[in-house]
Amino acid sequence: MAGSTPLQKREVDDENESSSSMRTAETILRLLPMGLCVVALVIMLKNSQTNEYGSLSYSDLGTFRYLVHANGICAGYSLLSAIVAAVPRPITMSRAWTFFLLDQILTYVILAAGAVSTEVVYLAYKGDTAVTWSESCVSFGGFCHKATVSVSITFIVSLCYAGLSLLTSYQLFSKYDAPVSFYNNKGRIEIATY
Amino acid sequence: MAGSTPLQKREVDDENESSSSMRTAETILRLLPMGLCVVALVIMLKNSQTNEYGSLSYSDLGTFRYLVHANGICAGYSLLSAIVAAVPRPITMSRAWTFFLLDQILTYVILAAGAVSTEVVYLAYKGDTAVTWSESCVSFGGFCHKATVSVSITFIVSLCYAGLSLLTSYQLFSKYDAPVSFYNNKGRIEIATY
Repeated sequence: MAGSTPLQKREVDDENESSSSMRTAETILRLLPMGLCVVALVIMLKNSQTNEYGSLSYSDLGTFRYLVHANGICAGYSLLSAIVAAVPRPITMSRAWTFFLLDQILTYVILAAGAVSTEVVYLAYKGDTAVTWSESCVSFGGFCHKATVSVSITFIVSLCYAGLSLLTSYQLFSKYDAPVSFYNNKGRIEIATY
Repeated sequence: MAGSTPLQKREVDDENESSSSMRTAETILRLLPMGLCVVALVIMLKNSQTNEYGSLSYSDLGTFRYLVHANGICAGYSLLSAIVAAVPRPITMSRAWTFFLLDQILTYVILAAGAVSTEVVYLAYKGDTAVTWSESCVSFGGFCHKATVSVSITFIVSLCYAGLSLLTSYQLFSKYDAPVSFYNNKGRIEIATY
C-alpha cells in the first residue's frame, strides 16, 4: 500500500470501475433468482394430479405451501432489491446493513424451503417402512416429477442467494476497519497479511 | 477520522482491546455449539423405542441419520476452530477466508439438517392424509419427544452459527477497502457514510 499521488488517483479510478461492475453483478444476481423463483412458484402452483388413486395437489402438503410462499417472498424481494441496487448511488451504512441482514434471512428461508421440500420429495419417492409411509410417487409420478423440478430450481435460487450474501457482507464489512491493524507513520491503515 | 497522533495511539489501544474481546466472543460462540451439538447427537443416538406396535430407532429414518452426522461434523469443526480462534495471533488473510467459507458451509449444513428433521418430526406428529402418511407419534410418543428435543437444540446451534458467520465475514471483509471510497489529501481512507 504505497501512498504516492498518481497511484491514489489510479486507485480511485479502479474503485469506481470495480464499484460499477459490482453494481452490475449485484443487479444480475438479484434478477436471476427473481426469474427462477417465479418459475419454481408457477410450476408448483400448477402441480396437481388426479388419477384412479385419487387426486393430489401441492396444497395438500404444508411443505409445498411453504415452498410457494418462500419463492413468492423471494421473487418480490429480489425485484425490489434489484431496483434499489441498480441505481448508481454511494452505498450508505444503513443500506449496507439492511441489504446484508435481509439477504442473510432470505438465504436461510429459501435454503430451508428447498431442504424440507427435498425431504418430502425424497420420502414420496422412497417411502419409509419403519413409520409406514408409503411411496406416493408410484401412484403420482407426474406430481413428483414437477415437484422435483420446482425444488431443484429453488436450490439454484439458494446458490444465488449464498453468492448475494457474500457480496453484501463484503459491501458492509469492508466499510469497517480491520479488527487487527496498526497505523504507520503516514497515518494510513496497514493490514497484517502474512 | 482525524489523523492526530494521540488519537491514533488511542485507536490502536481500542483496536487491541476490541480484538481481544472479539477473540473471547468467537471462542465462546464456537464452544457453545460444540457442546450443544454433542448433546443433540447423544439424544438422537440413544433415541429408540420398542412397544407393541414394533420398534423405531433414529437409524430407520435417513433424515435423523443426516442430523447425527451433521451434528458430529459440527461438533468436531467447532472444537478445532475454537482452539485455533483462542490462540492470540494476528488474523491472516488465508485464515480469515478459511474460517469464513467453512463457517458459511457449516451454517447451511446445520440449518438444512434442522429444517429437514423438523419436517420429519412434523409429519410424524401430524401425518398427511393426502399421501396416506400416518401419524407415527401416536404409537411412538417417546421417540418423537426426544427427536423434537434434539432438533430444537440443532436450531440453537444454527443460530450460533449464523452469529459466527456474521463475525467471520466481518473479520474477513473489514480487511478489504470499502467498494465506494475516496482518498483525502492526507492519504487516509475516508468512507462515505451518509
